[in-house]
Amino acid sequence: MTRILIEDELKGRSEVLVTGAQRKYLCTVLRMKPGEEVILFDQSGCEYTARFVSADRRCARLLILARRPSKSESPLRLILAQAILKAEKMEMVIQKAVELGASEIYPFTCERVVPVLRSHRKISRVERWNKIALEASRQCGRTRTMEVTRSLSFEEVLERRHSVDLGMLLCSRGEIALGRLACKLQRPNSVLIVVGPEGGFSDRELAMALDQGLLTVSLGPRTLRAETAGIVAVGLAQHRFGDLG
Amino acid sequence: MTRILIEDELKGRSEVLVTGAQRKYLCTVLRMKPGEEVILFDQSGCEYTARFVSADRRCARLLILARRPSKSESPLRLILAQAILKAEKMEMVIQKAVELGASEIYPFTCERVVPVLRSHRKISRVERWNKIALEASRQCGRTRTMEVTRSLSFEEVLERRHSVDLGMLLCSRGEIALGRLACKLQRPNSVLIVVGPEGGFSDRELAMALDQGLLTVSLGPRTLRAETAGIVAVGLAQHRFGDLG
Repeated sequence: MTRILIEDELKGRSEVLVTGAQRKYLCTVLRMKPGEEVILFDQSGCEYTARFVSADRRCARLLILARRPSKSESPLRLILAQAILKAEKMEMVIQKAVELGASEIYPFTCERVVPVLRSHRKISRVERWNKIALEASRQCGRTRTMEVTRSLSFEEVLERRHSVDLGMLLCSRGEIALGRLACKLQRPNSVLIVVGPEGGFSDRELAMALDQGLLTVSLGPRTLRAETAGIVAVGLAQHRFGDLG
Repeated sequence: MTRILIEDELKGRSEVLVTGAQRKYLCTVLRMKPGEEVILFDQSGCEYTARFVSADRRCARLLILARRPSKSESPLRLILAQAILKAEKMEMVIQKAVELGASEIYPFTCERVVPVLRSHRKISRVERWNKIALEASRQCGRTRTMEVTRSLSFEEVLERRHSVDLGMLLCSRGEIALGRLACKLQRPNSVLIVVGPEGGFSDRELAMALDQGLLTVSLGPRTLRAETAGIVAVGLAQHRFGDLG
């Protein structure tokens, strides 16, 4: 069934007026007819069944039929800090992280990041990443969208370690395997996973991460591509601490 | 360091003559000079440091310096049966499965598989998939290449359940979460994971799988794309039963 994000809170409402691009999507793309149903979500963690009633050139009118709490949001706040990769790889990581229930993505630059974003492209790139995240949320049944922040510096990523229970940095020379570490720990409420670029982190960056209290963890004996590492790390963390089961 | 697959067994040899495409790769692409070193592997689970000695138009001569057992092969025989996806998605799953240490991939067709391969394209497609697997093996440091079999029918996949210790089929209505199932089991030596197409399995196919003794397992509350499911299932199985740590 079609799923639509509504910016305003839906709680307590019996009717919604949909305008702009979403009206167009319902009326022109999907050619919805009165009586047909859609699912609405509003970032509150609930979703709503709604019936398409009517539409004119300005807005479409939907009647809310039922509200239910969603089971598709993980109790774990899971943040992936991903060094910026080439366009299609970065977009893939974002899409998969949404499906695996990540809450936020911090794209960041560090010494060995290859793609250079000029300042005027930085904003459009972040917009595009958020669009991909929204589309993936809609598709995989989530009721919240995963936020992709602006591009951060490595230092800014490390500072954010202090806002989570557990901070990990992936590297081939990690002190412990991610999975083994996970088995030893009590269930944290929030996890930050930092994944580097193809070329890995420099010794200086590793030292900085250790200084800030991040644990260095590895993902087995093979050399994973950066995008594989990001996806699998999110999957494993969601398995151990979240709702992947 | 450059890694090269040698078809013949290297054990006990002190010298290797490299011909054909691999000679060309060493001499023309990499422009190797006498004294430079490469790593050779031969599917035996060992790798060898070798020194480039000389080359002419027919072959390149390499001197084997040292042999060491590889730590990059998982003790788990892990087979991913993946319903055939669109070209670039299938190729991505194959590449990632290699990195995550899978031993074999069975591409298969079933009711809701969309890409239709004409018979003359079937062979070239399988050749291409194996080439991608070889390239990924080389890149991620493996000493064996993951075999991609010919395209199988769903029935043929199910029959192969009997050659492994544990057979699982992924579906959203699975009896138990893959991760939870994994926690309950003794460590199997061989695992088969069956992942369907975007449209999922039909009821008839699910019934057939249960008949053949496969367990149906799920991967959390969100709808994963087929390629995400394949990658994450291999990662989780390698984490629980293999060497992902």
